[in-house]
Amino acid sequence: MGRFLTLALLYLVAFTSAVAAADPLPSWNEGPAKQSIVTFVEAVTTTGSPDFVPPEDRIATFDNDGTLWPEQPMYTQLAFALDRVTAMAPLHPEWKDTQPFKAVLDGDLKALAAAGQKGLLELVTATHAGMTTDEFSKIVTGWLATARHPRFERPYTDLVYQPMLELLAYLRANGFKTYIVSGGGVEFMRPWTNAVYGVPPEQVIGSSIKTVFEMRDGLPRLFRQPEINFIDDKSGKPVGINQFIGRRPIAAFGNSDGDLEMLQWTTLIPQRRFGLIVHHTDAEREYAYDRNSAFGKLDVALDAAALNRWTVVDMKNDWIVIFPFEQK
Amino acid sequence: MGRFLTLALLYLVAFTSAVAAADPLPSWNEGPAKQSIVTFVEAVTTTGSPDFVPPEDRIATFDNDGTLWPEQPMYTQLAFALDRVTAMAPLHPEWKDTQPFKAVLDGDLKALAAAGQKGLLELVTATHAGMTTDEFSKIVTGWLATARHPRFERPYTDLVYQPMLELLAYLRANGFKTYIVSGGGVEFMRPWTNAVYGVPPEQVIGSSIKTVFEMRDGLPRLFRQPEINFIDDKSGKPVGINQFIGRRPIAAFGNSDGDLEMLQWTTLIPQRRFGLIVHHTDAEREYAYDRNSAFGKLDVALDAAALNRWTVVDMKNDWIVIFPFEQK
Repeated sequence: MGRFLTLALLYLVAFTSAVAAADPLPSWNEGPAKQSIVTFVEAVTTTGSPDFVPPEDRIATFDNDGTLWPEQPMYTQLAFALDRVTAMAPLHPEWKDTQPFKAVLDGDLKALAAAGQKGLLELVTATHAGMTTDEFSKIVTGWLATARHPRFERPYTDLVYQPMLELLAYLRANGFKTYIVSGGGVEFMRPWTNAVYGVPPEQVIGSSIKTVFEMRDGLPRLFRQPEINFIDDKSGKPVGINQFIGRRPIAAFGNSDGDLEMLQWTTLIPQRRFGLIVHHTDAEREYAYDRNSAFGKLDVALDAAALNRWTVVDMKNDWIVIFPFEQK
Repeated sequence: MGRFLTLALLYLVAFTSAVAAADPLPSWNEGPAKQSIVTFVEAVTTTGSPDFVPPEDRIATFDNDGTLWPEQPMYTQLAFALDRVTAMAPLHPEWKDTQPFKAVLDGDLKALAAAGQKGLLELVTATHAGMTTDEFSKIVTGWLATARHPRFERPYTDLVYQPMLELLAYLRANGFKTYIVSGGGVEFMRPWTNAVYGVPPEQVIGSSIKTVFEMRDGLPRLFRQPEINFIDDKSGKPVGINQFIGRRPIAAFGNSDGDLEMLQWTTLIPQRRFGLIVHHTDAEREYAYDRNSAFGKLDVALDAAALNRWTVVDMKNDWIVIFPFEQK
């Protein structure tokens, strides 16, 4: 081999490695989903591009359940509420004979389902109210430290989607401010989102119950009331985004019909915007569900994705790994 | 003079100038108020200090009316609402005979005052609802461009307190995230706070009316409803802070009884914290009022300041200039 050719080949190898090393989304297979993300980010961050967006307006909003971590076999926060009923039962002997608490204590999921939305609300208020905000935060942190996902037998916070962690970091490296906009309880998420997702408390928007301020023995506290304050789901998502951020996102990421309005609000304007739906297609490594699921139903939003050319991630084919612990 | 002495003197002059040039609060007279600010900031930002606070927890919250800009002879937003009634009157012939609108159109402040809180609420909903969030933002921007303060005959956004602008910048230079937490309407403030205070929309917390999300002709919009959503005043301030930021501030700045609970929530914990009250004592350059004022009443919070050793700023004596345009 001539010296020139050797050098050229060495150069090529070095160059290819550099490119591979620089891939910000290594857990994403090459394909239209990954390509659409990179193309969008380059379009809005390249100075002089017709689609350029100044850094302060680079707001990206992410749903949580089913978008950043699993929501099967039930929402993590529901598992928390059920565990809290069991833990609190000795203080509530009346629960043995009162629905929906009896159903939880008997492990009777059919009776629990029969209690419907009203029953769920009773469970949430009984387990999420009646303490200060600081106390609730400690209860959540304590539960997450010991609770295990029934199928994967790992802490819930181990079960975040590795490709989405890379996506969050990639967007932040490109000047985006990343927000969580979830139907889940904001105070259930804030204790851990910074450590797990790199999203600080002030960038977490969620559902909430009412709190009241009180001075007690000369010390101030916020006490959690058994009353819904705000439901951050469906049309509540754009409302919450406007209320908390006051800017319209330029990219939104979801996985269910609960995210439809957030994606509409974000993308249906003349400027270049980005919408993405995570489609759960991998029963082997995670779960496969869409139009008929009890948790994270994806039906209208899947049709809307096709209509509005939102990116649809096929988890089975687009993601090389699902969870961080699968990485080699 | 010996050469050594000359050099030493030159050095001293240079050093003194450097220190003077570096004063981050040049519109504050030397005194206990300025000293308390600098001492606190140094305590919480010096690595190894027992009071050190990591940058991500350096949250500072500022009231707006009376703390960052004037609230006399009436709240700026009330002046806006009254002007809107006049502007909208041709479309509402019935207002000529209906209170509180008649009082506004007749310039009858006595009748307006008689309409009380209920009347005020009617004025706000009539002038602040019934349009999209984007439309309202344009109305506010348009009004601020032409409206003038009745006494100072300048745009309201010229009338921000120069010493407080310096304080905001000083805190940010020391890693603080500065928030506005105001009883005023959040959508009345967000269009201009970034340009005027360097506080971006997502760091503005305020009162709000309800909005609903709608798809109209295939386009998404948020429509403003004539219904109160949240009052960010008094005990609403710590509630709003917890809801929007999810962290407890380490410093809070206010000027009236409406800020009492925010200062209690911020300062009444064992760690070193900072509370400050702006006391309006300068009738000549601005206004002098406290315990008996219709706007910005400072009574309970003034007593609480003494009790809790919050810094009380005496505007007349502590501030070298009040407004930016007074600077030489």
